[in-house]
Amino acid sequence: MNRRVAVELSKAYRLMNHGPTVIVTSHHGGRSNIMSAAWSMPLDFDPPKVAVVIDKSTFSRGLIEASGEFVLNIPSRELARLTLDVGSASGSEVDKFAAYGIASAAGAVVKAPLVEGCLGWLECRLIPEPHIQQAYDLFLGEVVAAWADPEVFDGAHWKVEAGGKRSIHYVAGGHFFEIGAPFNAGDAGSGE
Amino acid sequence: MNRRVAVELSKAYRLMNHGPTVIVTSHHGGRSNIMSAAWSMPLDFDPPKVAVVIDKSTFSRGLIEASGEFVLNIPSRELARLTLDVGSASGSEVDKFAAYGIASAAGAVVKAPLVEGCLGWLECRLIPEPHIQQAYDLFLGEVVAAWADPEVFDGAHWKVEAGGKRSIHYVAGGHFFEIGAPFNAGDAGSGE
Repeated sequence: MNRRVAVELSKAYRLMNHGPTVIVTSHHGGRSNIMSAAWSMPLDFDPPKVAVVIDKSTFSRGLIEASGEFVLNIPSRELARLTLDVGSASGSEVDKFAAYGIASAAGAVVKAPLVEGCLGWLECRLIPEPHIQQAYDLFLGEVVAAWADPEVFDGAHWKVEAGGKRSIHYVAGGHFFEIGAPFNAGDAGSGE
Repeated sequence: MNRRVAVELSKAYRLMNHGPTVIVTSHHGGRSNIMSAAWSMPLDFDPPKVAVVIDKSTFSRGLIEASGEFVLNIPSRELARLTLDVGSASGSEVDKFAAYGIASAAGAVVKAPLVEGCLGWLECRLIPEPHIQQAYDLFLGEVVAAWADPEVFDGAHWKVEAGGKRSIHYVAGGHFFEIGAPFNAGDAGSGE
């Protein structure tokens, strides 16, 4: 497993505030699964909450509903192909961890796995909201632990450098953007 | 108003699939307002739906609840400072369109304005879900019209070029990322 540092919960939203595509992992009854999700966002700062869209057709959905847990993993560009692959195969037919040789470690608080090689990880407990889960495939979670690769996130701030690791941002049809240059648009402190 | 082309509704999700920070506009009872929102995402393909977090403290929230409409505007890097500014001032105290000299045009379907200089615009009708609006500040909308700047989006695909216009992705404290290079991680068609 690559190195990781704990991220203070009140700063966890910063791992996904800029809209990266995420990998969702889940675990229940001895089975783990992994899928990708372009549709996720922070929902609150402290305690941090997230929202993510999990389609009815996915094997992950059953594991998440049964366990009440999931992890949002933030892949680097090196994992873009894997992000596509786990978004097209279904865990009902294949153990994707074995099929794609995906290394992972157990979460600290939840049982869903943390995927090796990611930039950040948010361990989440499902906030049950059956109506919106059913009507919109919309799942809410409270972040109960968060981690980051210290090479790109120091626990509170991103450190994206030229030639360094990057988050990826899915469009459609296999096409992504990588995140680009950081910049400061105003006085420190405004707009937070 | 800068040039814009209609985006087919089934492709509208692509304007925000990569996680840009958006500007939310609203209009009711002769008042328009404008705020920024880092927390938004697509919620469905066709008919397209979106989710966005609108805090209880915002003046926009009252306008959106009363009118049942809003627009998600996707700002370019040139609008980063404005995106910060409209995220810190409140429309209850000042007409931000006048105060910041913001040019805009009426929406085609909804009354909320389209902000000049953006890369894309999604006109939305609120899908009322009072429980999650109240409990999580979470607002859902159906996209009823969508537009893009033809310089960056041809109606179905992004065309981000070196030195060209870029979407912006907010982190915290005035710090953004601009979107970076596009790349294709797999065979065309996979992962869509």
